[in-house]
Formats: sequence, C-alpha cells, structure tokens
Amino acid sequence: MNFDLSILGTASALPAMNRYPSAQVLDVRGRLFLIDCGEGAQMQMRRMSIPYARIDNICISHIHGDHLFGLFGLLSTMSMLGRTAHLNIFAPAAFSKVLKFYLSMFGEGSGFEIEHHVLAMKSPEKVWESKSVEMLAFPLDHRIETYGFIIREKMPAFNVHKEYISRYGLTLAEIAALKRGEDVVRPAGEDTGPSLANGFRHFSGTSEPLVIPNSEAAYIPYRPRSYAYCSDTAPFPELHEWVRGVTLLYHESTFPDALSDMAVKTHHSTARQAAECARDAGVSRLVIGHYSSRFSDTRIFLKEASSVFPDTILAAEGLKISVPLEKWPFSK
Amino acid sequence: MNFDLSILGTASALPAMNRYPSAQVLDVRGRLFLIDCGEGAQMQMRRMSIPYARIDNICISHIHGDHLFGLFGLLSTMSMLGRTAHLNIFAPAAFSKVLKFYLSMFGEGSGFEIEHHVLAMKSPEKVWESKSVEMLAFPLDHRIETYGFIIREKMPAFNVHKEYISRYGLTLAEIAALKRGEDVVRPAGEDTGPSLANGFRHFSGTSEPLVIPNSEAAYIPYRPRSYAYCSDTAPFPELHEWVRGVTLLYHESTFPDALSDMAVKTHHSTARQAAECARDAGVSRLVIGHYSSRFSDTRIFLKEASSVFPDTILAAEGLKISVPLEKWPFSK
Repeated sequence: MNFDLSILGTASALPAMNRYPSAQVLDVRGRLFLIDCGEGAQMQMRRMSIPYARIDNICISHIHGDHLFGLFGLLSTMSMLGRTAHLNIFAPAAFSKVLKFYLSMFGEGSGFEIEHHVLAMKSPEKVWESKSVEMLAFPLDHRIETYGFIIREKMPAFNVHKEYISRYGLTLAEIAALKRGEDVVRPAGEDTGPSLANGFRHFSGTSEPLVIPNSEAAYIPYRPRSYAYCSDTAPFPELHEWVRGVTLLYHESTFPDALSDMAVKTHHSTARQAAECARDAGVSRLVIGHYSSRFSDTRIFLKEASSVFPDTILAAEGLKISVPLEKWPFSK
Repeated sequence: MNFDLSILGTASALPAMNRYPSAQVLDVRGRLFLIDCGEGAQMQMRRMSIPYARIDNICISHIHGDHLFGLFGLLSTMSMLGRTAHLNIFAPAAFSKVLKFYLSMFGEGSGFEIEHHVLAMKSPEKVWESKSVEMLAFPLDHRIETYGFIIREKMPAFNVHKEYISRYGLTLAEIAALKRGEDVVRPAGEDTGPSLANGFRHFSGTSEPLVIPNSEAAYIPYRPRSYAYCSDTAPFPELHEWVRGVTLLYHESTFPDALSDMAVKTHHSTARQAAECARDAGVSRLVIGHYSSRFSDTRIFLKEASSVFPDTILAAEGLKISVPLEKWPFSK
C-alpha cells in the first residue's frame, strides 16, 4: 500500500549542472503515474530502479520542451522492450500533433496502443479512476494551456464497530448504510434500543426516531492519501481551493521572491507563493522544485518557502518521498 | 590548436545504467562539431563544460532515436540563450520532417537559422570546409540510411628550408611551387647550381635540367589530424579504405563477437570487426562505443578489440581524448 513520489528532475527550462528537467513518478500501490517527462526521464528512472513496464498513465502538463522532451525516448524504449499494454497519456489538445509526429517517424513496429486523453477542463474534473485510485485534472495559469493533476486514493468503505452491530442488532441494510458513510435512522415506534444482555431489546415506543450517527458507529480503516502537481503556474485565487487538504502538494517555485517581477513576466511562481498556496490549502506537506538555472544553490528556495509553510521539502534529483498509510485509530 | 574528442554517450538503443545514448563533440581549434545527439546530450555538455554557443555544425548519422532525441532540447536551449548564429545540420533526407516538426511546434521566437544539409552520397564527399578544416560524409551500412563523417585538418602549406632558399637562390615563384608541394625543375642550361660563398653561381651548362625535390627542400610544419565517426554500421569492404590513415577512428562496437549473429541481424558491428577496420585502415588510434545494454561491464569489448588492434580506447561518458599536434621535425 505504498504512495511514493520519486523526483526525476527539478530544473526549469534551461539545463543546470546536475539537474534534469521536470519529471516525477508517483507510485500508488504499485501503479506508476509518470508526471511530465523532461529530457533524461528514462535515464533517471533507470537510475532509481523504476520499472518502465509499470507505467500505465503519463500526465503531460503542457507542451513546453522541458516537460516533454524525454517522452520520445521513453516511448521508444517501451516499444523496444516489447510492451503490449495500453498506455494513457493525459495532455492538452496540442499534444496530438506531437503524438502524430512520433508515431509517423518512430512508431513503426510498436506493439502497444497510446491513447491521448485530451485535457480541456475549466475546473477539476475526474479523468481516470480504478477501483481504489482516481485522478483529476484542472487548469493552471501559464503562458500556454497547462494543467495540474490530483492523484488520490478513493475514500475507503467505512468499517462498522463490532460493538455497535451487536448493541443495536444492526441489519445488513443498516450496516451497508454505515459502510457508505451514512447515519442509521430508525423511525419512531420501531425497535430502536440497544440489545440487552438477555437477548431482549428495549422498545422506545416514543414518537422520536433513533439516530445512530456514522461518526460513532463507523470509522475509515485508513486515511486516503492524495498528491497534487502544480507546474508550471502563476498563483491564482482558485488554486488553493482546488488542492485543499491534499497530503502532498508539489508546487513549482521557479524564482525566489526577489525575482517576483520575472515570475510575473513568465507566469511562474516564487517560493513564497508556493508556500502560501500550501498554507491556504491546508495541505500536510509541500514539495517545491522547477528551480531557475540562475541558482545553483537551492537553499534560498527552502528558506523562503519554509518561513511561510514549515513542512516544505526541496525537490532534488533522486529524492523519494514516501507517504505512510495512516490506519485507524488515528493519532490526531 | 586543439583537437579533442569528448564522449557524451556510449549507449546503444536501450538505456543502460549511467550510460547516455550516442553523442560526441569534436573540438577542432575551438570550433565544435556535435556528432549525433542522443537524449541528454545537452546535460552531458553542461557537465563537461562544453559551451553550446560554439557549436556551428551538427552531424546526425541517421534517424534513430538514440542518435537524435537530445536535439530538440539542445535547439530549444540555444534559442533560449539568445543564439543568432547560423547552425548547420548534416543529416539524411528524412531529417527534414524532424526539423519541420520541431520548428512548427517549438521554433517560435527562435533567433537563428537552421540549415539542413541533406546527405545523399554513395562514397566520401566533402560537405563542409573552412580555411583549415574540412568535413566529409560517406554512407554506412545500417538498417536505415546512415552516414559516417570524417573531420580533418587540411594539409598545411609546406615550409621551405631556409638553407635551400639561399643555396639555390630560389625565386619567389619557385618558393611558391615548393609551398604547394611541387618540385622545382630548372631547364638545362639555366642557372642551376647552388650559390657560391663569393656570391657567384655555378652554371652547369649541361643538357640536364636540375630538379630540387620538394621532399628535400620543403616540409610540412605539422601533421594534419583527422577523426572518423562510423556509427551505426555493419562491416563492409569499402569502409577501411574510406577512413584510411585517420588519426582517430570511432567505430561502433555494439556486441562482442560471441553475439555476432545479433550484430548481423541488427546491422551492427562486433568489437573484433571494429578493430579489424582500424587495423586494415592503418589508423593511429581506435575508440569503440555504442555498447549493447546487455553488458554493464564494457571490458569485454576492450579485450576483444585490443587483441586485434592494441591502440584501442573504450569510450566512456565524460572521457576526453586529446590528439596532440605533431610539429616538424617529426619523431617518426
């Protein structure tokens, strides 16, 4: 039940010493999501022992080279390795030209289908789901059409406390309702009381219905984990609402605040703005990256962001961030 | 007057741990030739402190991804860095589609022109020259249309030994002939003898002309250096003639001899075949690379090649091979 983010690249458009352009892999319970695919992504995956074959979904935020130029190499490698599994690519409409070119020049002999899911929403929309995981995409504010992503575990079915089942003699229908997260409501005059030790029950006989609140009778077995990816983007008012409460937020931080004029001009964010988004969204943890090549030392970004939002992590090539599964009973 | 080969990548098609796909930079007297441009080439150049701005000529041997997929990133970076200088790309005809796609999707705002020189020869032909350096291209034998390259210093003008000038009282025309590499021939009956100490000269008065051989009166100030790049290719009979006598030969060596059936099938060479080409061509030194990802330890290639051709170097990421300038008088 792992939920691990692997950072393949942290550079912005221009190459910097020992940095790779944007690419990340989120491993949710063994299913891999590749999020952006800058040049060198496949080499970085190899270095981090991430198996290409387990990638079923690729998210391309926007059609700028530093988020994309590793894709042709990866697709070629998948083909040479004999992949047959269907591959989803979630990307803006402009990606269709990229895919068409790739397939026409380099797609010969490829044994797997690539499906381009065109992103074109104005607010968060579900674009993919499995039984236990789902992905949403939402627009960002960059120089060209750009999208962010939320990948999250679905809310698990509630478990019902055994003592409530026996105390109230819950029926299967009532248990199913509790598992769905609903309260149990028994109409007035029905069997509303808890079971007695002798096997008999109280009958209230009053005109009041009995309510068994879900919050008392049921509990979620674990807290669903969630990851949001926001790159590239300028800050905008809706963003912190859209990523509210995620466990892990990746927010680009191309410049420090001292270069906020550059950030405005290029539709990027500063480290402070990334941290403000994390704070306003009430996320558990922030990861920043996409550093301008002007800065060989990235500590300036950490210092600035963590002064606003202390739980900030500096993305770095090769870094793996594991989000542990919190099982009930929760510590807080 | 440097002549340095920098190895950016040694992998063949599939990525291997810590290997990059094919790319090399040849620095001839400060002018950089990028030869093939596999994914990650620009990061490797950055790591080796090779300035993008000094690349004026890019050679693409063939349109397979592992020789090409770093090009889009490099061209984008050149554009972002404000390049205005003309860029030559020498590549087969199929490259025109690649360039057209790149320019249509990512070329906006680029301030420099890219000229595609279409390679289509059947034997070595000069494709570029400056005052002192020239480049030839020639066909290789691979699964698709593929070309090799020779980059070499031109033969320098001969210097004339001062003692010959004074001894024979050489005229300006005679000196110019010697500098062009010609012999001086004085017809019978003319002033053919060496000067005497008293300023007079012998007159032979015979019917024999006097020949002053170029090989005695003149010398080349340095040995011109040359580099040949042969990747990807199966062995073929003309190749060693075409690269005869180069100072440094890069020849692909995808497989060891034990996998020669694989080499035949994929139109590649074995380490032994690379070494045989070097031996038959009488080159000074061989560099092998383009190793199959099956082999994490490349010593097997070196062992095999050097048993046939001892002056063999294993290409490795980050390796720089400097060819020293041999000035007259030559040691051998």
